[in-house]
Amino acid sequence: MPELRKDPITGRWVIIATERAKRPDQFTGHDESPHEGKCPFCEGSEYDTPHEVYAVRTAHTQPNTAGWQVRVVPSLKPMLSIEGALDRHGKGIFDVVNGVGAHEVIIETPQHVANMADLPVEQINNVINVYMHRFTDLEKDERFKYLLVFKNYGWAAGGGRIKHARSQLIATPVNPKRVKEELAGAKKYFDYHERCIFCDLIKQEVDFKERVVAEIDGFVAIVPFASRFPFEIWILPKDHNCDFSTITAGHQKELAEMLKLVLLKLKKAANDPPYNYIIHTAPFRRPKLGYWKTIHEDFHWHIEIIPRLTRVAGFEWGTGFYICPLPPESAAKFLREVQV
Amino acid sequence: MPELRKDPITGRWVIIATERAKRPDQFTGHDESPHEGKCPFCEGSEYDTPHEVYAVRTAHTQPNTAGWQVRVVPSLKPMLSIEGALDRHGKGIFDVVNGVGAHEVIIETPQHVANMADLPVEQINNVINVYMHRFTDLEKDERFKYLLVFKNYGWAAGGGRIKHARSQLIATPVNPKRVKEELAGAKKYFDYHERCIFCDLIKQEVDFKERVVAEIDGFVAIVPFASRFPFEIWILPKDHNCDFSTITAGHQKELAEMLKLVLLKLKKAANDPPYNYIIHTAPFRRPKLGYWKTIHEDFHWHIEIIPRLTRVAGFEWGTGFYICPLPPESAAKFLREVQV
Repeated sequence: MPELRKDPITGRWVIIATERAKRPDQFTGHDESPHEGKCPFCEGSEYDTPHEVYAVRTAHTQPNTAGWQVRVVPSLKPMLSIEGALDRHGKGIFDVVNGVGAHEVIIETPQHVANMADLPVEQINNVINVYMHRFTDLEKDERFKYLLVFKNYGWAAGGGRIKHARSQLIATPVNPKRVKEELAGAKKYFDYHERCIFCDLIKQEVDFKERVVAEIDGFVAIVPFASRFPFEIWILPKDHNCDFSTITAGHQKELAEMLKLVLLKLKKAANDPPYNYIIHTAPFRRPKLGYWKTIHEDFHWHIEIIPRLTRVAGFEWGTGFYICPLPPESAAKFLREVQV
Repeated sequence: MPELRKDPITGRWVIIATERAKRPDQFTGHDESPHEGKCPFCEGSEYDTPHEVYAVRTAHTQPNTAGWQVRVVPSLKPMLSIEGALDRHGKGIFDVVNGVGAHEVIIETPQHVANMADLPVEQINNVINVYMHRFTDLEKDERFKYLLVFKNYGWAAGGGRIKHARSQLIATPVNPKRVKEELAGAKKYFDYHERCIFCDLIKQEVDFKERVVAEIDGFVAIVPFASRFPFEIWILPKDHNCDFSTITAGHQKELAEMLKLVLLKLKKAANDPPYNYIIHTAPFRRPKLGYWKTIHEDFHWHIEIIPRLTRVAGFEWGTGFYICPLPPESAAKFLREVQV
């Protein structure tokens, strides 16, 4: 079973990933070659993956056979293990938790298409629907505190050797440090102003326009003022809501349109760059945790898209500063004007 | 002038780097080719760099000519600008500081050698000496709060296109987030135990031995318990000291030996991997800041070496978790046994 270890000084968690373990002599410092042969994520290869957890399927088709539109399977090399109880213990001055969690792969299309940008809006809508189903289902497991939904596209973004559009989700038994930082920052602003910082930010960006990439009824896409990466883009719902898993069908459809538009613009603007996206949403809001109300008012779900066009080096690791060689206002203007 | 922008939610700083700026259509998503032609860091090319700030030189040689052993020059594309006063101001809900700071390159050898591991111990000792000189000098500039000394070796570690051994330093006008986190974490432990967490950690590691890579009189090199990366290595002085810039000549010599040994072992263990190292030391300890005494007792300078053999992907960005596919104990054993 994987082991979660906590750095005693900074409090950051590390997963010592036994399922992905390599021997010490297997680290060569050189990239692996791209995948050759049959793609395990394509329709017709259902038995090359672990058994499906969930799928959007044509009526009367059987699990683990053809006939699906979006398919969810456990990761073949899970970072965390779905079996087992939580166990926290000490090792000398160190803290350890056993690596319990869920790690699933969401296969976004039965066809061998690499970039979500190239899927039809209806298909992206299906994917969003599946995300929401997984939120509702995994929230029932009391061992989990947080569910992170994310995408790694392209080699430099950790997208692996197989070029088939997919996202991943990981449910964690502890609340992640970056999530806590974001919640704490938003709460600080709320405590002072009694307003949601994201709502204020959206209003200011929509008024100023200079960092807006696209705007539709329910959503706005901006290049953030303090962008870490060239062409970083955030998609935010205009109405206040802390919880991604509760959005309405109408909003889902709009989000699918916005994702398609923004990912296509990014693809065209920067020559199909590698990127990650991450859904930032509130932790599972079980009332017993006691902070349901506060989070409801001061946090605002959104999606952060980070293209991987620059390398993070010693200065960034040492300080937590980021260096962005493209002014966010120029990036936004360029993305606004790119025709897709 | 570069601009420092603060993310209003998480508080992280971003440098919008005007000196390194590219146009939006210059991000192609593909790597640049390696440098061809004369190396500007080699002896005899002194006029291909900005004028030197400092150098260790043979007696009676002139600045910006041959005859040096280690040479410090301002960065050709500085992330921060040495000219100008500090100016903090708001832009709507955002915070901005103008990008004042120092950014220097420490050229570690007049010969065209790429990896510090391949320099003689005496030369590494010269480099350490130069680091200390720069600390003492830049501490006098009241605009700066912190000095980060780091190295980017190899392309994946941000080492650039020119293969000539060098390190960098950046003096910042604000205390970096990661430095504050480390100081705060160490203080929390000290407040509870009235002991330095690093001293406790060293004692435990030296007793257990399983994560020790090498040990000499004044220093120990370990693979940390919660390693973020395969073959991550920390070098720690055994005697308590918060301030790198105050180590004695004897300790400097020992540190040079330890650095050489550890970098050679890393080179051999993982096929000359790209890596960063970062000197973690206390902020400039001007008594007026009022925390001199506390930092003196609860912080402990050290060097963190992070090989870049894995890719940081969506999960890591979203959570602040790291995934390490090599158990630290196996890495330490392998490194201990590698003959160099």
